[in-house]
Amino acid sequence: MTVASTATPTGSAGVTATRTADVIVVGSGPAGLSAALFAHRLGEQVLVLEKGATHGGTAVKAAACFWVPNNDLMRARGYHDTKESTLRFIARSARPLGYDPADPHLGLADWQYRQLEAFYDNAWTAVQTLQEMDALHTTIDSPLGVLLPDYLVLPEDETPVGRALFPMRADGTVGDGIDMINQLKAGVDRRGIPLLLHHQVTDVVLDDTGAVVGVTAATPQDPATTFSARKAVVFASGGFTHNDEMRRNFLSGPTFGGCAVTTNTGDFIDIAGRLGTQLRNMNYAWMAPLLVEKAIAQDPGLHGICLCGGDAMLWVNKYGRRITNEKAPYNEATQSFFHWDPHRAEYPNIVQFMIWDQRVADRYGFEGYGNPVPPDPDQAPHVLRAGTLGELADRIDQRLARLAPHTGGVRLEPGFTDTLRTTVATFNAYARAGKDPEFHRGETPIEPLYSGPAQEDNPANPTMYPLADTGPYYAVIIGAGTLDTKGGPLTSPNGQVLGRSGAPIPGLYGVGNCVASASGQAFYAGGATIGPIFAMAYLTAEAASREPVRQPATR
Amino acid sequence: MTVASTATPTGSAGVTATRTADVIVVGSGPAGLSAALFAHRLGEQVLVLEKGATHGGTAVKAAACFWVPNNDLMRARGYHDTKESTLRFIARSARPLGYDPADPHLGLADWQYRQLEAFYDNAWTAVQTLQEMDALHTTIDSPLGVLLPDYLVLPEDETPVGRALFPMRADGTVGDGIDMINQLKAGVDRRGIPLLLHHQVTDVVLDDTGAVVGVTAATPQDPATTFSARKAVVFASGGFTHNDEMRRNFLSGPTFGGCAVTTNTGDFIDIAGRLGTQLRNMNYAWMAPLLVEKAIAQDPGLHGICLCGGDAMLWVNKYGRRITNEKAPYNEATQSFFHWDPHRAEYPNIVQFMIWDQRVADRYGFEGYGNPVPPDPDQAPHVLRAGTLGELADRIDQRLARLAPHTGGVRLEPGFTDTLRTTVATFNAYARAGKDPEFHRGETPIEPLYSGPAQEDNPANPTMYPLADTGPYYAVIIGAGTLDTKGGPLTSPNGQVLGRSGAPIPGLYGVGNCVASASGQAFYAGGATIGPIFAMAYLTAEAASREPVRQPATR
Repeated sequence: MTVASTATPTGSAGVTATRTADVIVVGSGPAGLSAALFAHRLGEQVLVLEKGATHGGTAVKAAACFWVPNNDLMRARGYHDTKESTLRFIARSARPLGYDPADPHLGLADWQYRQLEAFYDNAWTAVQTLQEMDALHTTIDSPLGVLLPDYLVLPEDETPVGRALFPMRADGTVGDGIDMINQLKAGVDRRGIPLLLHHQVTDVVLDDTGAVVGVTAATPQDPATTFSARKAVVFASGGFTHNDEMRRNFLSGPTFGGCAVTTNTGDFIDIAGRLGTQLRNMNYAWMAPLLVEKAIAQDPGLHGICLCGGDAMLWVNKYGRRITNEKAPYNEATQSFFHWDPHRAEYPNIVQFMIWDQRVADRYGFEGYGNPVPPDPDQAPHVLRAGTLGELADRIDQRLARLAPHTGGVRLEPGFTDTLRTTVATFNAYARAGKDPEFHRGETPIEPLYSGPAQEDNPANPTMYPLADTGPYYAVIIGAGTLDTKGGPLTSPNGQVLGRSGAPIPGLYGVGNCVASASGQAFYAGGATIGPIFAMAYLTAEAASREPVRQPATR
Repeated sequence: MTVASTATPTGSAGVTATRTADVIVVGSGPAGLSAALFAHRLGEQVLVLEKGATHGGTAVKAAACFWVPNNDLMRARGYHDTKESTLRFIARSARPLGYDPADPHLGLADWQYRQLEAFYDNAWTAVQTLQEMDALHTTIDSPLGVLLPDYLVLPEDETPVGRALFPMRADGTVGDGIDMINQLKAGVDRRGIPLLLHHQVTDVVLDDTGAVVGVTAATPQDPATTFSARKAVVFASGGFTHNDEMRRNFLSGPTFGGCAVTTNTGDFIDIAGRLGTQLRNMNYAWMAPLLVEKAIAQDPGLHGICLCGGDAMLWVNKYGRRITNEKAPYNEATQSFFHWDPHRAEYPNIVQFMIWDQRVADRYGFEGYGNPVPPDPDQAPHVLRAGTLGELADRIDQRLARLAPHTGGVRLEPGFTDTLRTTVATFNAYARAGKDPEFHRGETPIEPLYSGPAQEDNPANPTMYPLADTGPYYAVIIGAGTLDTKGGPLTSPNGQVLGRSGAPIPGLYGVGNCVASASGQAFYAGGATIGPIFAMAYLTAEAASREPVRQPATR
């Protein structure tokens, strides 16, 4: 047993790294990069280990924003926010059955309430700090032209716009996930923080007292390299989207996969598990519909359908019936797939078919936000096209036959086409009236914004338009999935992973989707993922920096 | 550190016990008692530790049957069973989205398929063995007068009656859960197996090699008594029904509680967790509707509503709308509570109101199977009564106001009474026609049987009858709950608890609701709980008996 050598492997970006640091960060998405930056700012020597071939995690392909309560930018626009309203809004959304406005903790578990408080109190400070470090530039403007409204419309939410912030590019325009990562990564590089790609952390190293003093990682050179942490190891390694068994055995409904970065396989749940951690919020995820065929193929370019483009567009199930508001925020629309029919012992909506006409194909085709209407349908093999609705049904059913081993054998039911025609006629009548009395399409502020470019000729309800009487028509097969999961070990509000007794495991921290989210079942607003991540990364770095220096890990 | 003394505390039944045994069994429900019997039969010295004040677990108050594929009793009645049909039926129900009839494992995970195979191959042998030991007497007759049909009606199920067996009393009549427990316990006592009540196992004791060689238990005398196991510790300690945090953070939908014995608080998940176990099937439970008020009060006499008595009886939600087949098997009907409405960001059906008329009150009132229609409504404070539907609505809403802190504030919506009247009129028309085109009430074989005593005057559909035009009317408030949960550490088909690497943790076993059930989301038939338990207890005892003798635990 010898103390780990301070050999100098070369990082991916040519950075020279050592095998010992004050703080080791596992993962290089927004949680990992910001935690690394915050820790370095406090004088710590930091090392980032990334499992994948590239840095940035899921955010690289996301339309990233961050929900930051009571931020200066909203105040400058005249929006007033209160802690009480923010906490009530999240509590009501996170645990609807437990919500009790008269309870001091609003009916939440203690850990959950304390995390939400910490989030409210620290999110804007965290974002400001990144800004001061020149590692994130922020705007309240959204790419949609107006301030982004919250997803859920609830009386508890007294400030439904203003909390969602976006990365800002150098030219002042609104940026995307890749811009956020680029800014964070530039900050990491400027500070000389080594970031080693292809380093899959497989375990933590404990000292005799049970404190975490390092990790072992599989690298291309060595299946078990030890890295020593003098103060702390911070996991920021993402959720379990790409672990089929975990998805099946934890999530509240059956999913086809998800669009998190493919390295998100729930590693931290197993690694932390043997330390006697307590798992929380394992049943919920940041959910979105997705293209079933791309999910089955495990296409790394898969996106959640966050924007479902088109007005003359609707979803139907295998009976040809419409069963949800297609424009509902993605997490909400996803719940429609999980309805269970006890009579037939089946999920009748487990796959649905998004159908649109030529006019939509012409006007709403673009890449981005997971929009299923492609710029060129001929380049999109998952898009089915036919001259009539009957022919389209045949195409769908042929495709379903091919997918049957992956879908529990779903096929179109007898009578699908007739029911579809009735459904389309009803939808068209709703569209002409501008009102969807069944599913309330277009009634909340977010919906027209996530509809694609606004059209001029249906002012009553810009999210709806009658489908053309004649083809061609288009369809894709959609199903439930995750952007990423949000359950894992329970932490304190400053990221300390808690053991079985409730006491922190010395030296072990977790931030982001690899640990339990206080958001419960809710995806209450755009940025509800990354906003809390920045706050928790900030508090985590502070707590990690306060750790005593320990004898480093030995191999 | 000294070897545990072999002091002789006195068991609950006056049995003299030691603190060392070959096999320690934790829990005294059907899983624990049968595992103890099977191990003793193989020559092992066995000790049973029970957390509660009484033995028997949840089964004491259950209408216990056990689903045993390909049993002799069904064959004697001419019912032919095959392994293929049994496995297809369970696989299709357990994981509908994964089911693939062409896959050698039917689309199931390897562990799940192997457990189901082991169940099929060993369940009848296990029951026969208990019978030979004079510890369980079995009949294929049911208390409902006919052979009990399976709950789910699926083409994969080629033998939908005959697998459900019941305990038989000494007089040859069909017994109940308490009879099953009495027979098993009598067997345990005859063999002199000590069973210590008030012994809450708090941890396992490991030797230097990581093998489990004992447990620590909190007893009335000592918060940490060590018990040594020479060969194995078998956990049979039930699910996590009475652990609110676990229910909230694991189950697929929000529940109010459950009717498992109140000591079922998920202890084994924490105890095993620190050994690096892998959790499976944490999202599903054996579900049933229950009386919300009794669940909130944590009434130990709470029963799941397994039989929803009455024909002129219906359920409505807070809008006054009927939303499910009230006679669907309890696990299936429970799914209706979980529907999420994205537009209002609410569970519209999270509580429902079961409503009946005087004729039903007179004819269907009895105790048993959780029937909510009481023999004497005046003795049932949770039953609301009023002269008209409008007054009944007022009563319901007053009661809801009182319960608001526990229900997320559910109240009746404006227009409830008018909608209820329309719903009742529609229901009455369905009842007269004998057909429920919306929810198919009464269409499967199990439904009339779980309807209460058959009535003579509505032959078209014995589960439906028009509600009287005049009051009094009755109502109870119902919500989702669990009989018990069925997720926990992954085991091998013979009960070995598997560690992180997939290898068994030497000396550690689990049976029943404290470990992962291969049934996935399904409650495919009555007895789907205890049938597999007997098979797994049998295999577990065999494997435990084969363990090498280890140095006993020290304190």
